[in-house]
Amino acid sequence: MLSPTELEVEKVSDCILDWPSGPLDQPRSRATFDWKQMKLVLEGDFVVRYKHQIWSLLAKDPDFSRKPWDEYNRDDERRLTFARLKKLVDFKITNDEDVSQPYRLLSFVQAIGQFSWSLIVKRTLSYEYFVYSFKSGKGKPNNDLVDDVINFKGLGALCMTEMAHGSNTKKLQTTATFNPADQTFILNTPSLEATKVWAGVLGQSATHAVVFAQLYTPDGSCHGLHSFMVPVRDTKTFQPFPGITIGDMGEKIGLNGLDNGFMTFNNYIVPKSSLISRNAQVTSEGKYVSQIKDQSKRLGSTLGVLSSGRLFIMLFGVTNIQSALTIAVRYSAVRRQFGPSDGEEIPILDYQSQQWRLIPYIAVSYVLHNLFASFYRDYIVFYLATFHSNGKDKSSMGSEIHALSSCGKAITTWMARDVIQECRECCGGHGYLKAAGFGDLRNDHDANVTYEGDNSVLLQQTSNYLVKLYKEKIEEGHEISSHFGSVNFINSIDDILSSHGSSDTFDDIPKVLEAYRFLVCYLLKSSYFKLLDQTAKLGDSFKARNETQVYYLKNLATVFFESEALNRYQQFLLSFSGPKEINNVLQQLGLLYGLWSIEKHMAILYESGYISVPTSVNMSSSQLKSKPLTDVREAILGLCRQLKDNAVGLVDSYAPPDHILNSSLGASDGKIYENIFAALKNNKGAFGKPDWLQGLINVKSKL
Amino acid sequence: MLSPTELEVEKVSDCILDWPSGPLDQPRSRATFDWKQMKLVLEGDFVVRYKHQIWSLLAKDPDFSRKPWDEYNRDDERRLTFARLKKLVDFKITNDEDVSQPYRLLSFVQAIGQFSWSLIVKRTLSYEYFVYSFKSGKGKPNNDLVDDVINFKGLGALCMTEMAHGSNTKKLQTTATFNPADQTFILNTPSLEATKVWAGVLGQSATHAVVFAQLYTPDGSCHGLHSFMVPVRDTKTFQPFPGITIGDMGEKIGLNGLDNGFMTFNNYIVPKSSLISRNAQVTSEGKYVSQIKDQSKRLGSTLGVLSSGRLFIMLFGVTNIQSALTIAVRYSAVRRQFGPSDGEEIPILDYQSQQWRLIPYIAVSYVLHNLFASFYRDYIVFYLATFHSNGKDKSSMGSEIHALSSCGKAITTWMARDVIQECRECCGGHGYLKAAGFGDLRNDHDANVTYEGDNSVLLQQTSNYLVKLYKEKIEEGHEISSHFGSVNFINSIDDILSSHGSSDTFDDIPKVLEAYRFLVCYLLKSSYFKLLDQTAKLGDSFKARNETQVYYLKNLATVFFESEALNRYQQFLLSFSGPKEINNVLQQLGLLYGLWSIEKHMAILYESGYISVPTSVNMSSSQLKSKPLTDVREAILGLCRQLKDNAVGLVDSYAPPDHILNSSLGASDGKIYENIFAALKNNKGAFGKPDWLQGLINVKSKL
Repeated sequence: MLSPTELEVEKVSDCILDWPSGPLDQPRSRATFDWKQMKLVLEGDFVVRYKHQIWSLLAKDPDFSRKPWDEYNRDDERRLTFARLKKLVDFKITNDEDVSQPYRLLSFVQAIGQFSWSLIVKRTLSYEYFVYSFKSGKGKPNNDLVDDVINFKGLGALCMTEMAHGSNTKKLQTTATFNPADQTFILNTPSLEATKVWAGVLGQSATHAVVFAQLYTPDGSCHGLHSFMVPVRDTKTFQPFPGITIGDMGEKIGLNGLDNGFMTFNNYIVPKSSLISRNAQVTSEGKYVSQIKDQSKRLGSTLGVLSSGRLFIMLFGVTNIQSALTIAVRYSAVRRQFGPSDGEEIPILDYQSQQWRLIPYIAVSYVLHNLFASFYRDYIVFYLATFHSNGKDKSSMGSEIHALSSCGKAITTWMARDVIQECRECCGGHGYLKAAGFGDLRNDHDANVTYEGDNSVLLQQTSNYLVKLYKEKIEEGHEISSHFGSVNFINSIDDILSSHGSSDTFDDIPKVLEAYRFLVCYLLKSSYFKLLDQTAKLGDSFKARNETQVYYLKNLATVFFESEALNRYQQFLLSFSGPKEINNVLQQLGLLYGLWSIEKHMAILYESGYISVPTSVNMSSSQLKSKPLTDVREAILGLCRQLKDNAVGLVDSYAPPDHILNSSLGASDGKIYENIFAALKNNKGAFGKPDWLQGLINVKSKL
Repeated sequence: MLSPTELEVEKVSDCILDWPSGPLDQPRSRATFDWKQMKLVLEGDFVVRYKHQIWSLLAKDPDFSRKPWDEYNRDDERRLTFARLKKLVDFKITNDEDVSQPYRLLSFVQAIGQFSWSLIVKRTLSYEYFVYSFKSGKGKPNNDLVDDVINFKGLGALCMTEMAHGSNTKKLQTTATFNPADQTFILNTPSLEATKVWAGVLGQSATHAVVFAQLYTPDGSCHGLHSFMVPVRDTKTFQPFPGITIGDMGEKIGLNGLDNGFMTFNNYIVPKSSLISRNAQVTSEGKYVSQIKDQSKRLGSTLGVLSSGRLFIMLFGVTNIQSALTIAVRYSAVRRQFGPSDGEEIPILDYQSQQWRLIPYIAVSYVLHNLFASFYRDYIVFYLATFHSNGKDKSSMGSEIHALSSCGKAITTWMARDVIQECRECCGGHGYLKAAGFGDLRNDHDANVTYEGDNSVLLQQTSNYLVKLYKEKIEEGHEISSHFGSVNFINSIDDILSSHGSSDTFDDIPKVLEAYRFLVCYLLKSSYFKLLDQTAKLGDSFKARNETQVYYLKNLATVFFESEALNRYQQFLLSFSGPKEINNVLQQLGLLYGLWSIEKHMAILYESGYISVPTSVNMSSSQLKSKPLTDVREAILGLCRQLKDNAVGLVDSYAPPDHILNSSLGASDGKIYENIFAALKNNKGAFGKPDWLQGLINVKSKL
């Protein structure tokens, strides 16, 4: 329906509609910039138009109609999600063959995800992810099953995790034993703990699965984890095949539109061609032949395909931050409570406390939006380079992408978790209504901190990368330099560490960045020496790394992330050529993000001597001596105050339409009480008497 | 069924059952203390026996039977909660006339609440809270309606909050106008925004309501907020009376067993005797007569009744912390992932990172348990004193209780929020299953941070109290001294502030306490002077207070709370005469709590000069100079390591029975995989094909 040509004719100005009039008119009128211009700065012409067109399609389709107060049980959610998935195919919105416009998939994922995370996760797992993992893993396409999925004659699932093993994929137990007699692999689940679990789409609807299993040859030797294309259900009847037991995992905290499943194999036979591998094969006699000799490298090659998912989950986080803030900021600009003695009540956004709870998160939303976009551009470069590598090693480029996407996914999804919660609380009691939207947002988002790599484990990927670079520098004299430049400054680690104390005021972004680079270097060097000490003491690098996680490696990955987020935002600002009033606000947001983030690390800046300390404190006078911590905090509050009147405009710039946001508190008209009342009076059974009540009310007991 | 006499015959040793054997045997065997002894230290003989007996009753009753994987829609939850509420009356567990045993109500609330928060909230709102608010507000009981509730012929509700006003109760708009012609009050809802909302039990089942309204006399003057006993539904048919519109608010984030309702009045008439007031009356001619002249004092008297609720919510928080930790610690002691190079996989609790995420929270659970018990004892003293006051002013005692319960409720419920989330994440993917229990725990708990006073607003109550005391000291020379002694140390504020720098190592609880007292004094003095400056600058104390919230008053209330929590724990330790091995563990927990809490305030300790700072940093050597921040952090990690083998025993000491905890991950047998698998295979429709699927799978579209 939407071909690229059709898309061109839609003028972008027609895609950014005025907000309806209401109580938000006044707060909006106080903005110092034009939110429509800001929207284009944030998203660009293509994304704005494409998302608008997707959302317009959804708005017209009854399968996508819903109200904030609608209630669904799990079965309803499953059914709706399946029906909508089918409708997405009818819409023909995406075209996976079109790589000329990398923002197409991104816009699709965000536009649909913001409507329903279950739907986009089901879609990407059953289609994009599945096809991609097959194509990138397979040298010659010699298996037709994937065509069914491409043609939507079936749905795909990825089966990796087992009940007893998630992060430690090496220990997965499912076996695939080659049988030369009939040139097949026999799949088995050797124990209860080896039950495949958590596979999205598997519970009710997958017809095909990419199954990860230990490959055994007839001589009894294990060749490590490989993936196999396995038919699991009949594409006509959706009945599982004999030899496979599949079940639905039941209710989860969220994402209940997605049917996560479990599966066991009992001598289930698949043809030899089911092995998905670019680099390994089994001969017809049952001999294992691999182009990659090292088993751990083979594993890396098999798992490499999964890393792109992290970037998309980072986008999920950014999107959820936008949704939550849109609701809370609009509500806070309209809701009034208390005021100066016997005067008018004031909007709660006028309180310092409410500003401090919300406005730094607006800064976060802008900085992380830019960070995601920047990582995504890098990823496209890496992706294209890999597929046109002609055998050249792209592993150093890949390592940097891996390190960035790992901490990016972890910190962004944790941040979104905190933003959603703060926004929920900032809306008080009404925020606890289902119709406010925060409950579903929080419950659906919650999975993001765990899947595709537990956040805590992911941060170790980033710190390992940094420590390895530093180790190579001081032990082997290697220069620290990377394709995307995120670590280049560390090459000057000695200069950076000796510069400490040069500045203890943070009145612009470069000064904050300077402090961040000091922090990264300080924690990197401390971590390295701590690791050395611990290795000497414990005699085992595994143990040493574990004993260096808290306060060292974890904090290192965190400050590296924050530093890079601020750095890339600053690069964006330096190249920004838009209107001055937009630039001013973007500058304030960047500085606020930097100060608010680094405030959490002030103790280490004190202890390291980076910032100077008062030699005496005069507590007897009312005028406290100016001090770095207090200065940073005052600057944060000052920026919140300056940005307060722009808060609504800043969320308007990324707010989705009302039918996508689906919140009684965050609607664009700002008519919070009318909208809440609509939720109250229209919910199912609002005014009725439940039919079970009569049987229970004849209470005879006495206390 | 349970009379106090019967209770006496049950031996306490029969109430503490051995855990079933399983994978937790080994971790349990490493504990250095006897968890059964610890249980008695924590809860005492009476509470252990009473809770055991309640839980035994529930275990035998089919209405209280459930499984971790059960799914309920809102209507199911409402029905079950109502049926269980009725059953609680049949059980005759409590006896509200019995004040000789104040732990009875507490044990009842905790034992039932840990089973179902909806149930205990519905119970306490519809009964205890209702009767109490009536009895304490009414001088002479001249209204029979409350007897219906006492005799369980009806259910009560409290209607305070309106759609546009929650915290600012003064601005509530519902009117009650006295009509001398027929000696009645006429209730009206003057606007959409004045709709009564959030009243628990009102949505489907309340027959009586205590309604807060502005009292108007015929001369048109408003006498402020008063409460009225209002019949709202027929006790036989549960039909609302004409003149009242009642609706159910629909689905909420959690507590969906509780029917929160909304209500509007249209010239609804109640008799003159409906006015609930100890201190005010309207004469038959319509003249308002009050014993309290000051309208704000009248309001305080009316609202005073609500403060006890905060203490119980603090108990909700403590209980949720216990539930969440029980699940996560048991799971972490059994779940294994990774290990030293090619060796056995190790329990995830053996990782420094997992210890650091969970074990400080175990310390929190012990310290806050003690804090609640201590506050509760104080509250009983205050309660008895008030009801036997013989006209003596107990307001200073009341102010201290109010300040303590306000920060106690706020910080404890925020802490529980964080503990639940961390525990959920510590259990990885399986923690996302509904059967793990974290989703319901989090969603039900979420209300606690908002109701009975928004946490942010409550902290202001505590800081206002402290600032007022300090102001009276320096402006009027009053000594700072309180009945329960929580603020007495502040009287030495000048000495405490000048002692800074005396210690920068924190190797025992008294040294941490000393630093905490410095922090309280430092922030109190800073806040006071900041308020003075802001008042001079802004000319309005309302504005000045708002501009002093973040980093001053909010932090002041927080450190005061932490200081008092540690102080009361230390008092408990000093009086502890139990076994040495129990004492050792309790000491470690207290120090861990103190260090882990104060670590977050290290920057201010640096800036204030309380801890000394290195004059030079030698980053070129691998051995970093010993420094306070690093020392505190190392001590935290060291205590986590020391406590690790006791972690399971520490949660066993407060863990409820499995049928109450209701978690597939946290069951006492530690058979996590068998239990998870049971949840997978037994959930509704695990192996079936949904009936809607066939109609949707004939997918003809092509991408």
